[in-house]
Amino acid sequence: MNNFTVGPVQMDNETLSIGSEQIPYFRTQEFSEIQKENESLLINFFDAPENSRVVFMTGSGTASMEGGIMNFFTNEDNVLIINGGSFGHRFVELCEIHNIPYTEIKLELGQPLTKEKLMAYDNKGFTGFIVQLCETSTGILYDLNMIGDFCKRNNLFLFVDAISGFLADTISMNKMHINAAITGSQKALSLPPSMSFTILDEIAQKRCYHNNVKSLYFNYVEYLKNGERGQTPFTPAVSTLLQLNDKLKRIKNNGGVMETNRIIKERADYFRNKIQHLPFKIFTPREYSSNCVTALMPLNSSTSAYKIFEVLKNEYNIWICPNGGELKEKVFRVGHIGTINNDEIDKLIHAFDDLVKRGLL
Amino acid sequence: MNNFTVGPVQMDNETLSIGSEQIPYFRTQEFSEIQKENESLLINFFDAPENSRVVFMTGSGTASMEGGIMNFFTNEDNVLIINGGSFGHRFVELCEIHNIPYTEIKLELGQPLTKEKLMAYDNKGFTGFIVQLCETSTGILYDLNMIGDFCKRNNLFLFVDAISGFLADTISMNKMHINAAITGSQKALSLPPSMSFTILDEIAQKRCYHNNVKSLYFNYVEYLKNGERGQTPFTPAVSTLLQLNDKLKRIKNNGGVMETNRIIKERADYFRNKIQHLPFKIFTPREYSSNCVTALMPLNSSTSAYKIFEVLKNEYNIWICPNGGELKEKVFRVGHIGTINNDEIDKLIHAFDDLVKRGLL
Repeated sequence: MNNFTVGPVQMDNETLSIGSEQIPYFRTQEFSEIQKENESLLINFFDAPENSRVVFMTGSGTASMEGGIMNFFTNEDNVLIINGGSFGHRFVELCEIHNIPYTEIKLELGQPLTKEKLMAYDNKGFTGFIVQLCETSTGILYDLNMIGDFCKRNNLFLFVDAISGFLADTISMNKMHINAAITGSQKALSLPPSMSFTILDEIAQKRCYHNNVKSLYFNYVEYLKNGERGQTPFTPAVSTLLQLNDKLKRIKNNGGVMETNRIIKERADYFRNKIQHLPFKIFTPREYSSNCVTALMPLNSSTSAYKIFEVLKNEYNIWICPNGGELKEKVFRVGHIGTINNDEIDKLIHAFDDLVKRGLL
Repeated sequence: MNNFTVGPVQMDNETLSIGSEQIPYFRTQEFSEIQKENESLLINFFDAPENSRVVFMTGSGTASMEGGIMNFFTNEDNVLIINGGSFGHRFVELCEIHNIPYTEIKLELGQPLTKEKLMAYDNKGFTGFIVQLCETSTGILYDLNMIGDFCKRNNLFLFVDAISGFLADTISMNKMHINAAITGSQKALSLPPSMSFTILDEIAQKRCYHNNVKSLYFNYVEYLKNGERGQTPFTPAVSTLLQLNDKLKRIKNNGGVMETNRIIKERADYFRNKIQHLPFKIFTPREYSSNCVTALMPLNSSTSAYKIFEVLKNEYNIWICPNGGELKEKVFRVGHIGTINNDEIDKLIHAFDDLVKRGLL
C-alpha cells in the first residue's frame, strides 16, 4: 500500500529498524540522556526561547491539546480561538469542557484568517490566542507572523497546534511570539502514533506552576519536574522516543529543519503542479496552503469524495485521506508528509487519470 | 541486555517483526475488524460477562487508572481503596484529585489483605472498591475471590488494576464479580509501552453514560461509541494494536490464558526455587506472591538494593527493576513477564552468585 494520509504516515527504514529492536529499561541515566537530547533538539527545531522545556506526553495529539488547555489557561482567561475546521473546533470543545471563557473566530472552511478579520479583535481585553499552524482538515496555513504580532501587541498568550504543521511549514516560537506549541509523533516526524510533544517557553511553564490542574495524567508540573532529570512521570512509549532521537539527529545532520521544510514543500509543489489537468478544485487557495496536505474537491458534483478514497484503497492499493463531517462526500486529502518519493506521487496521479478514464472522477 | 524489569519487557520475535512494518491507515473497515477481534479476545481472556466492552486508551497504565476513576465514580460514591504500595497509593491520589470520597485500607508493604482486616468494612455503606490484582511495587497478590465475594455481598462496584497481573495471575471478571479491569501493553502482553486497555461490564458502561466527565481525552462514552464500529475517538498507537491482535491470537491458539498463566507461574517458581541459597529475603510471603514479579531484600543490611541494580546493569548487562520511594535502598524486583527463558534466569542467578563472591551482596 502507498500511504498518502496525514498520519500515521510512511516511516523510513531507520525508524522501522528501531521498531524491531528490544526496548530498554528506561529509568536509567542512559535513557535520561537520550531524553535530554530529544528535548534540546526539539527546542532548537521550534526555534524556542532560552529556558524552554518540552512535555513528552504519551497520547494522541488531542491529549496535548487538552493538556495545554488545562495547564495554560484558567477560568480567569479570555481566549480567542481560530475555528477553521475540525481541529479548530476541537479547541472550542475543550474550552467548553474546561470552562475557559472564549470567543471563536469561525472561518469559512478552507479560507485564511485575514488581517481585516483579525483586527476587529484588537484591544478587546483577551488574554490568550489558540490556533493551528495548519488546519489539517482543509490544509489551510494560518499566517503566524501576523498572528504573532497581534498577540505581542495585545499581550496574549499564544498556544499553537503545530501537530501536523511542524517540519512541513515554517514555525519559529521566537519570531512568531509563540508561548507553547505541539507536534505529534505520527506526522512529519514520521514515527509511530503514540506520543505528542509540547514545547513551552518560560511563560507557559509559569502558567503550569500557577495553575492547580485537577488531573494526574495531565499535570504538566509533574512532567516538567521529572523532565529535569530526563524522565517522565509515567511509562512513556519508549520505542517512539528512541525513534524520535534517531530522527531528530538525522534531521540535524541533514541540513536541519529548513532543509526538511524545503523537501516537503518541493513534494507538495510537485504534486500540485502535476494535478492541474485533473478535474479537481484545490479546496484551499494555493497561496494559503500548508505543505503538509492538499485538500481536493472533485469538480463533478455527482462524484463522492469518500468513494474515491474507497476505490483507491480497494483497487489501487493507495490510501488517501478521507474527510469527516460535512466535507465527507465533497473533499478528500492527499498528504505530503512521511517518506514519499516522486514515483509514488506519479503512481497516485496515474490512478487519478485512470479514474477519469473509467468515468469515476 | 537481559531485561528482568516489569515493563517494558522482552518482546518475542513475532511482535518485534510487526514493529518493523509500515503502519496502515486506520480509519478503515479492515482496521475496524482487527479492533473488534481485539475487543472480543480481551473480553474472553478476562472472562468478562456478556455485553462487556473494551476502552482502548493511548496512554500509560496510569491514564486508564485515572480514566476509570473519572468515569466510574462521582462525588456521591464512597469507595474503599486497598493501599499496599505505590500503585495502591496512586488510586488514593486520584480519588483526592477528583473529589471521590474514599476510605483507604493501608497495608504493611508486602503483606496481604486478610479476611479479618476486610471484614471490619462489611456493611459500612460503601459503594465501590478499588484494588490492584498484583501490587507491582512489592509483588503482593490480593485475594480477588475473597474481595469479589465481599463486593457482591455489599453491592460494591469493583474496579481492578490488573495492569501487571493480567496473564501472570488468574483473573475472572465473572467469578470475582469485577465490574472493570485494566491491563497495559508493556506488561505480560509484552508489547511496546503506549496503550492500556480497560474491560467494562454493563454496569461499568452505564456508569460512564450517567457520568458527566469533564474531559475530552478521558470521556469513555466517546470510546464506547466509536468502539461500536471498531474505532477510537483519537489516533491510537496503531502498531501496538496490530501487535496486540497478533499476540492475542497466538495466546488463543497456544492453550489460551490458562496456559500463559501456567508458563509464567512455572518461570516464577523456577526463579524462586533457584535463589534459596542466596542472601535474600523474599519481601512478600511466597503464598501471597504474584507470578508477575519477585521483590527481594538483601539480607545484609549494608547492601544497597539500588546499587545491585546499577552493578548488574553496568557490569553484567542485566536489568533488574529498582524500587522507588522508601524501598529504594532496601528492595529490588525481578520480573517474570515477557519472553524470558531458563538460561536467562540462570545467567541472572550466576550474576548474583558472583556478587556474593565479590562481597557485594
